[in-house]
Amino acid sequence: MQELAPKGLEGVYVDKSEIATTDKTGNLVYRGYKVIDISDRLSFEQIAYLVDYGKLPTSDELKTFSKFLLDNSRLSEGSVKIAELMKGRNLIDILRTVVSSLQVDSVDAESLVSIAAKFPEIIYCGANGGSPPKIKGNSYRERFYYLLTGTDDPEKGKLLEKILIMYMEHEFNASTFALRVTASTLADPVCAFTTALATLKGPLHGGANSEVLRFLLKIRNNEEVRKYVDTAMEKKEKIMGFGHRVYKDKDPRAQYIKGILVKTFPDNLAVRNAVFMEEYIWEKKKLAANLDFYGALYLHLLGIEEKYYLSIFAAARVFGWVAHYSEQRSNNKIIRPLALYTGKTDLNL
Amino acid sequence: MQELAPKGLEGVYVDKSEIATTDKTGNLVYRGYKVIDISDRLSFEQIAYLVDYGKLPTSDELKTFSKFLLDNSRLSEGSVKIAELMKGRNLIDILRTVVSSLQVDSVDAESLVSIAAKFPEIIYCGANGGSPPKIKGNSYRERFYYLLTGTDDPEKGKLLEKILIMYMEHEFNASTFALRVTASTLADPVCAFTTALATLKGPLHGGANSEVLRFLLKIRNNEEVRKYVDTAMEKKEKIMGFGHRVYKDKDPRAQYIKGILVKTFPDNLAVRNAVFMEEYIWEKKKLAANLDFYGALYLHLLGIEEKYYLSIFAAARVFGWVAHYSEQRSNNKIIRPLALYTGKTDLNL
Repeated sequence: MQELAPKGLEGVYVDKSEIATTDKTGNLVYRGYKVIDISDRLSFEQIAYLVDYGKLPTSDELKTFSKFLLDNSRLSEGSVKIAELMKGRNLIDILRTVVSSLQVDSVDAESLVSIAAKFPEIIYCGANGGSPPKIKGNSYRERFYYLLTGTDDPEKGKLLEKILIMYMEHEFNASTFALRVTASTLADPVCAFTTALATLKGPLHGGANSEVLRFLLKIRNNEEVRKYVDTAMEKKEKIMGFGHRVYKDKDPRAQYIKGILVKTFPDNLAVRNAVFMEEYIWEKKKLAANLDFYGALYLHLLGIEEKYYLSIFAAARVFGWVAHYSEQRSNNKIIRPLALYTGKTDLNL
Repeated sequence: MQELAPKGLEGVYVDKSEIATTDKTGNLVYRGYKVIDISDRLSFEQIAYLVDYGKLPTSDELKTFSKFLLDNSRLSEGSVKIAELMKGRNLIDILRTVVSSLQVDSVDAESLVSIAAKFPEIIYCGANGGSPPKIKGNSYRERFYYLLTGTDDPEKGKLLEKILIMYMEHEFNASTFALRVTASTLADPVCAFTTALATLKGPLHGGANSEVLRFLLKIRNNEEVRKYVDTAMEKKEKIMGFGHRVYKDKDPRAQYIKGILVKTFPDNLAVRNAVFMEEYIWEKKKLAANLDFYGALYLHLLGIEEKYYLSIFAAARVFGWVAHYSEQRSNNKIIRPLALYTGKTDLNL
């Protein structure tokens, strides 16, 4: 009998990668740098460049890259029309479909980044219809914050940037792995990003943070937290926002975002309840809060509506997908495993 | 050091499946039945039902299923408009994008089949624009053949049906495996089918058969075949249409289609050259012709234009995808492997 790999490929190293990892102490590392170290000192553009090109940009390279992001951010008339035809639908469905409609056959990093650069305007267009206004902001974070909220707020833009950096890359998560399967057939970048967006929608991956937020905004005190958690545990229900396949200890990204939340909104009831909930679940079950748990509350307190959260995640993660598409193509073999057949045999009509 | 799985997951059994397999003698089996045995005696609808529901339909079930396929084949105005906005693009891009725009959240087999049922009309609409005509044909094969060629031809419709059956299902090929990764996040069926369509486009998977056809229609005699093959071998180039990860011996689907070709078009020069080419490459390299090799020529001789081939493959395979989506959801664990990090560590700003 053939040996079966662990279910869900849990713990299976399917390929090498030079993009990101979690080091021995549970830190997330992008291209050799600890993310929580660089996120205070570098911009979204600098870190996206690092992830996609494997090194930090010089100041000239950064200028060119930032201009490239801006120049490639605008949508064609066709893209705007497709988004309008889907008005009212879940934003991630619109984002996936508009990306799927793009035509990019070249596989160089610039071509890949040119797709990623369009995500903020596709999201705007999916939410509001019509072409996005021309934005004056010079930085990616300012333009994106403006498209999400219609307001200029440099401080909140900076806070948005931090979570975008946390969401940017996380090695072979389900959407990235699915993207690599698509890329391994030599399908074009649009196909690969479409696959990743389709996979991100699943509640076990990217689609779970709204539920967490609704709960955090509803609870009034620690007693309610305890009751909610105890009931869920008795019923053996999964508590959204807790646990992660890779982090068995604390999720460093969640801890980083929690740190900003506590510092920026020290008196906020939901923040205090969230911190209590994290501690209570850790104490009871040794299950750590993941990035979604604090991420949803964080975006809410930046004044961003819930409908945007999953697409914001996608707009950050796509810069990781760029790197994974390139890496897969640079040393490719089609990803084509086997199924262990356990069905009937030898049936006849 | 961690152990790395074989590159491309070659030879790795990633999960159990009861849908399809190749048996010890290299036969392809759907739900226990040898495909080449049932394809002469059962209709596309019967075999699609077998694959999707795990058993052959009774005559009442078959009637209901056939009616369901017909009732769900029509496109919404929105779908037609999206296809029109993409006019002139590769049909598989239009098919993928229109499927991505659909909204189906339920995960029962009927909901999944309701998406699959739309593929022929999406393909028509992508190629011709506008709403498809209402077709009188009672069978799936007749309607599909009419949409592809604009002609009624019951004999050719029957031949189309044979290759649709061969294309329908093939366990964990790249598109199906990618679909299962997407399904494993509990993403909805539209997401999963979109992923599969995105993955099918890669030339190492579904996208390779046009090149084969162009060559077969160009060559005049055996001498040219020999020269082409010898040159490719000297340059160590891959010859499209030959070799398959699963079939190390003959591909039973290719042999079945070859049998029909030789019987139906015995004097056709391209058919004769194809048979010679298959024998020559087998003799020289022990590489077997795969389904794409004979499939493209077969569709050409049915009077179907080359631009349709990949989408026809998709319209057949989607009935396999229905079964795999259901199977993945019925015993699910998120497919989330690990990357073996080989990049830099401990960098500082």
